[in-house]
Amino acid sequence: MHPNFDSGHSFINSEDAGSFQVDWTHRLLTTRDALAPSNTLLADLLPDDDGPVRMIAILDQGLVTAHPELPTQVQLWAEANPRSVRLVGDAVIVPGGEQAKNDFGVFNTTAQAINERGICRKSFVLAAGGGAVLDAVGYAAASTHRGVRMLRMPTTTLAQADAGIGVKNGINAYGKKNFLGTFSPPWAVVNDTNLLTSLSDRDWRSGLSESVKVALLKDPDFFEELQRLATRTRQRDLDAMEMIVRRTACLHMDHIVHGGDPFELTIARPLDFGHWSAHKLEQMTNFEVAHGEAVAIGLAIDLTYAAMMGRLDESILRSARRCLIDLGFSLDHPALEHHDLLLEGLREFREHLGGRLTITLIEDLGRPVDVHEIDLGTMRRAIDDVRTAAMNESSRAG
Amino acid sequence: MHPNFDSGHSFINSEDAGSFQVDWTHRLLTTRDALAPSNTLLADLLPDDDGPVRMIAILDQGLVTAHPELPTQVQLWAEANPRSVRLVGDAVIVPGGEQAKNDFGVFNTTAQAINERGICRKSFVLAAGGGAVLDAVGYAAASTHRGVRMLRMPTTTLAQADAGIGVKNGINAYGKKNFLGTFSPPWAVVNDTNLLTSLSDRDWRSGLSESVKVALLKDPDFFEELQRLATRTRQRDLDAMEMIVRRTACLHMDHIVHGGDPFELTIARPLDFGHWSAHKLEQMTNFEVAHGEAVAIGLAIDLTYAAMMGRLDESILRSARRCLIDLGFSLDHPALEHHDLLLEGLREFREHLGGRLTITLIEDLGRPVDVHEIDLGTMRRAIDDVRTAAMNESSRAG
Repeated sequence: MHPNFDSGHSFINSEDAGSFQVDWTHRLLTTRDALAPSNTLLADLLPDDDGPVRMIAILDQGLVTAHPELPTQVQLWAEANPRSVRLVGDAVIVPGGEQAKNDFGVFNTTAQAINERGICRKSFVLAAGGGAVLDAVGYAAASTHRGVRMLRMPTTTLAQADAGIGVKNGINAYGKKNFLGTFSPPWAVVNDTNLLTSLSDRDWRSGLSESVKVALLKDPDFFEELQRLATRTRQRDLDAMEMIVRRTACLHMDHIVHGGDPFELTIARPLDFGHWSAHKLEQMTNFEVAHGEAVAIGLAIDLTYAAMMGRLDESILRSARRCLIDLGFSLDHPALEHHDLLLEGLREFREHLGGRLTITLIEDLGRPVDVHEIDLGTMRRAIDDVRTAAMNESSRAG
Repeated sequence: MHPNFDSGHSFINSEDAGSFQVDWTHRLLTTRDALAPSNTLLADLLPDDDGPVRMIAILDQGLVTAHPELPTQVQLWAEANPRSVRLVGDAVIVPGGEQAKNDFGVFNTTAQAINERGICRKSFVLAAGGGAVLDAVGYAAASTHRGVRMLRMPTTTLAQADAGIGVKNGINAYGKKNFLGTFSPPWAVVNDTNLLTSLSDRDWRSGLSESVKVALLKDPDFFEELQRLATRTRQRDLDAMEMIVRRTACLHMDHIVHGGDPFELTIARPLDFGHWSAHKLEQMTNFEVAHGEAVAIGLAIDLTYAAMMGRLDESILRSARRCLIDLGFSLDHPALEHHDLLLEGLREFREHLGGRLTITLIEDLGRPVDVHEIDLGTMRRAIDDVRTAAMNESSRAG
């Protein structure tokens, strides 16, 4: 490392390079009643080498409305585990839903609490809520002191199955989803299945499109199981839901841990199947269409496109569409009429990914394939076909 | 990865865990006239697998004032390398100095340019300037699209030797240095020695306290060389400066690459020797005292403390103090009178690091030692002693 020195020339270009690795552990736990004083799971997760850890709790307003006992529960849980944790101040309650990440509001609230309550790089932020709250709080936790430790408790189906599992956080800016954010593995993700029971039918269902997505991409057995359990799940069977969520979450975690590029430094992202139009559809409808709902439609569009291009068997398209409908998804939306605007999503998707356009389709169950060009005429026909099929479906149902 | 499912009990705690690594390469290049059309160093650094990379240039106002030709030079350099790079729009010029990171101004300017000019995760931000500009631009580049690629061109002695070399970025918030930021390795760091010639004496000198610091901690030979070259360097010998900067930068890079914890996830930071009081002194003087100047004083304080505690030989303290003075540093400042306020820096330092207080001292040249408790009475005496010695020195010089 001690360079020799030459002088007298103009371009003495010397390079000193080295490579290094950073190791992370990804922990995903499934439990029920995580904050019951007698449930030791959360406390057991915390490091015990240096006394109780300081912690602040940040809770999604929507979650607290459904579970008004939660702020007190957090307090009692901490009091039951004084050797593991010292809760600093009352729980902070922040607005939930996509609004949480549409500006710096939740980010600032989190950063300010971290500052005022002396949360350091060895302390914890416990964040419980939907994916948007976890994303905004997570970006703030990842940025303050260049990263304080975070326990994530996703509380919607979508967040438990997908959004809360990953190593990404972020907020929207300049009208673009997740324009600002980082890759920052949380200390652990804790899925409390009981919290799903209070969800509206819409939020209960929404994350299951990600289950269909990941099953189609990676796990034909799971796709079969999903088809089998779809109706039971729509009817709010908690055991069926827990099984689906856990398997979906495991597949997502598996992709991060074993996919070879957890921080997406080089390659495309096969788990973004169906997402280019989903992101755009959310934005076009001012987030009236929830992410999971948009993904259901986005999957239908890309599956239909793949079938129209002769790359995918019609029967798989039909089963996937059927499964989404059995789970309770609607595959039509008036905004689909605006092809041009929707297709803008392809350009934005490329830009967000970086490099050339990469869209993941499937050729068969469990057989993803990346394409780098999209035939826009066929894509327009695919969008119309999804609409038509959905309308026929609903007139048949009605 | 396919979990079995059990139901019927309350706390079915199941854990799915996995660990993963992320690999980075750290490239540090030293050159002169990096942007000369005939210097191929920068272009050779860029990936060539996917056509020319899109790039925006963000330049420190102070740098452009000293080198008004720079925006045109960037343009001409890009035009001379059309197969490697496509510059998108004019160079963005942002205010420099600590002000660059005292609010979201430079961060927002950078994020907005990245948005408007279609910079993606495979595109580049070329940032040239002092450490503060690199920190603020770097935080924005690390956050937009969860990280676009960055070429760092530090242009002050401090930034080339230390601040611009590392994997950290950040802005100040809530009155605290680097309260917001990330660990994000740049694509490469390019030190252009010629840019140092236009620095004021103060900026020319400022970074050299970090050279003294790292030499004391890690490299007795380098400390000897520093003592030998100190006066020549103060007299603005560019070859001596290049040698010192390059060796300092290499030692800092070596610490990141081989130190075992580049993202500071677990251990203390031995390179923060002398920094607890330096950070506080900067803040107390509203950043009138530059970082490097504060570090010179901070080193003198901690070395004096170590000697008073009987941990360090007096002769090393005297050589280090002599070396700092020969390089041109003043080791006194009126703010040192405010012991209580200055000692607040210990608490803030602990909080920023996380966990218990860890202060790095040295026991001998190249022999750092971490201490976890500070005798405040002795520290107060050390601060006073630094002041007295500096006053005696200056009355002798005068």
